[in-house]
Amino acid sequence: MKIALDAMGSDAHPVPDIDGAVQAARAWNLAIAFVGDEAKINPELAKHDTRGLNIEIVHTAEAIGMTEHVDAVKSKKDASLNVAVRLVKEKKADAFVTMGNSGAAMAAALFGLGRIKGIERPAFAAVIPSGESRTLLLDIGANADVKPEYLLQFALMGSIYAQRVMGVANPRVALLSNGEEEGKGTIIVREAYALLKKSNLNFIGNAEGKDAPRGFADVIVSDGFAGNVMIKTMEGVAEMLIDFLKAEIKKRPLAVAGALLAKPAFDALKLRLDYAEIGGAPVLGVDGVTIIGHGRSNAKAVRNAIRAAKQAVEGDMINAIRVGVAGV
Amino acid sequence: MKIALDAMGSDAHPVPDIDGAVQAARAWNLAIAFVGDEAKINPELAKHDTRGLNIEIVHTAEAIGMTEHVDAVKSKKDASLNVAVRLVKEKKADAFVTMGNSGAAMAAALFGLGRIKGIERPAFAAVIPSGESRTLLLDIGANADVKPEYLLQFALMGSIYAQRVMGVANPRVALLSNGEEEGKGTIIVREAYALLKKSNLNFIGNAEGKDAPRGFADVIVSDGFAGNVMIKTMEGVAEMLIDFLKAEIKKRPLAVAGALLAKPAFDALKLRLDYAEIGGAPVLGVDGVTIIGHGRSNAKAVRNAIRAAKQAVEGDMINAIRVGVAGV
Repeated sequence: MKIALDAMGSDAHPVPDIDGAVQAARAWNLAIAFVGDEAKINPELAKHDTRGLNIEIVHTAEAIGMTEHVDAVKSKKDASLNVAVRLVKEKKADAFVTMGNSGAAMAAALFGLGRIKGIERPAFAAVIPSGESRTLLLDIGANADVKPEYLLQFALMGSIYAQRVMGVANPRVALLSNGEEEGKGTIIVREAYALLKKSNLNFIGNAEGKDAPRGFADVIVSDGFAGNVMIKTMEGVAEMLIDFLKAEIKKRPLAVAGALLAKPAFDALKLRLDYAEIGGAPVLGVDGVTIIGHGRSNAKAVRNAIRAAKQAVEGDMINAIRVGVAGV
Repeated sequence: MKIALDAMGSDAHPVPDIDGAVQAARAWNLAIAFVGDEAKINPELAKHDTRGLNIEIVHTAEAIGMTEHVDAVKSKKDASLNVAVRLVKEKKADAFVTMGNSGAAMAAALFGLGRIKGIERPAFAAVIPSGESRTLLLDIGANADVKPEYLLQFALMGSIYAQRVMGVANPRVALLSNGEEEGKGTIIVREAYALLKKSNLNFIGNAEGKDAPRGFADVIVSDGFAGNVMIKTMEGVAEMLIDFLKAEIKKRPLAVAGALLAKPAFDALKLRLDYAEIGGAPVLGVDGVTIIGHGRSNAKAVRNAIRAAKQAVEGDMINAIRVGVAGV
């Protein structure tokens, strides 16, 4: 199996990108195609022991920066994102992984790979820490406006990802709404509720904003507007609380001593919220495995993003979606 | 000024309701009409020193419980919520305050008081801790489906509440969206953006989910679906983080000792998140001051909810909305 990795992705590229990919190549015996500027990749790669690894460099000088507009995907045909996607399209690689500009990465995947036959709209997902496990939330921003049928397809795709990549046997699927009871929600959400109820998915009803961090469901389905609000609110609140607590502790010498003693507990919390543990999240519905990680990714996050891609390929996820959508 | 207080509101009614209202009556020289079952109110009231206070009991045996369906507002005509609203409608009181079932309270206010002329849809707001100050978020659930014009009216009403009750001179109004830039959002949000830009409000652009706890804006405007997702996500994440940290501390004896030393810092965080500091949030757009507090309210929360009602009356909020909506 070969992974096409955009080596120009992370904020600190290509350092964590290469480090994480070399680790992944060794851990799971994967072939890696590093896509990007060889003048930057080569010296970094030289710092690692790559003996026996199946790695190659696919050179391209162009790259799309974190703050560039998504239009750059069209104007920079040979940006590393586009070249990496092309390797998948041309069957020279099995999956596309990047820590880069997520809007551009989505667009590159969508234009370059197209939709899986029958899928109306691809969706971008996030994996969130939830109780003792994880919850896949989708869509988180690709589709602000949706139709009930899109939400049904998001549920199907999310359920397949939860099964094949997250290892959940019979994923519980919930629909994000503004109340628990059936009948709550926008007109579109209420229609989607009816579709989900009739489907053969393991639909457990509505989820509310408070349910996401509680392990309520394995998959939460939403339009890309409310899903985006939810994921960003989670990030914002977690950061605010931790920053505030730190500031309050700093003001008090005894509290500083106390916090030192309590550090292992704080570390456990940090680990739980650690983006790197998750690695990346999929774009679902495009015709090729696509995993996008956070720009702030370290080597561990890159490694875990590549692992998710590997599991999606091994689990034949694309085909499962193709078959699933035909049967919905 | 007289406040009609639903004495059967809070989870522990009428204990905190009466305690808080007696405090408010003394602090701000307010008249209070306690609406509810006198057999429950009288013995509780007897525990307080009410000499010199302008208080009365308006007896009604009926009440609507926390878990009752909103239809109870129609079937229980003499529920304490309905009777309290009627006092405002009949100009026997200046404001309606309850810690009860918020769906039922909203319905009681809407049916009993009607809309302010020109207001398309009343909205339910929440006051959230935000940086060093507070942010008013509306709508949080009254209107899952909205039109751009409703969002403009929510912005107007929120701005007036921020001015007259929260004491913000020139409230910064933001529109909840799935990205900062103009052009992000659903079709409805994008149309609302254009309306807000043309309005005479202090519109500062889009807010994202992560912005709410950062003091980004004084008022954040949303449909009732995404607003509800946002407020419930904030609650869920804060509870999850604190519960998790507590559990991790408990596992470690040294961390327990550390947490004791750090307790004042935790207390500061608790205070910051303390619902009672805020008290209650308004239903805006109904033709009478209406403040709804949390069922878990303690006496301080009740007192602060009554203070918000008092400020709305003193600030002539209803009239300001009436005039404002005519000029938008």
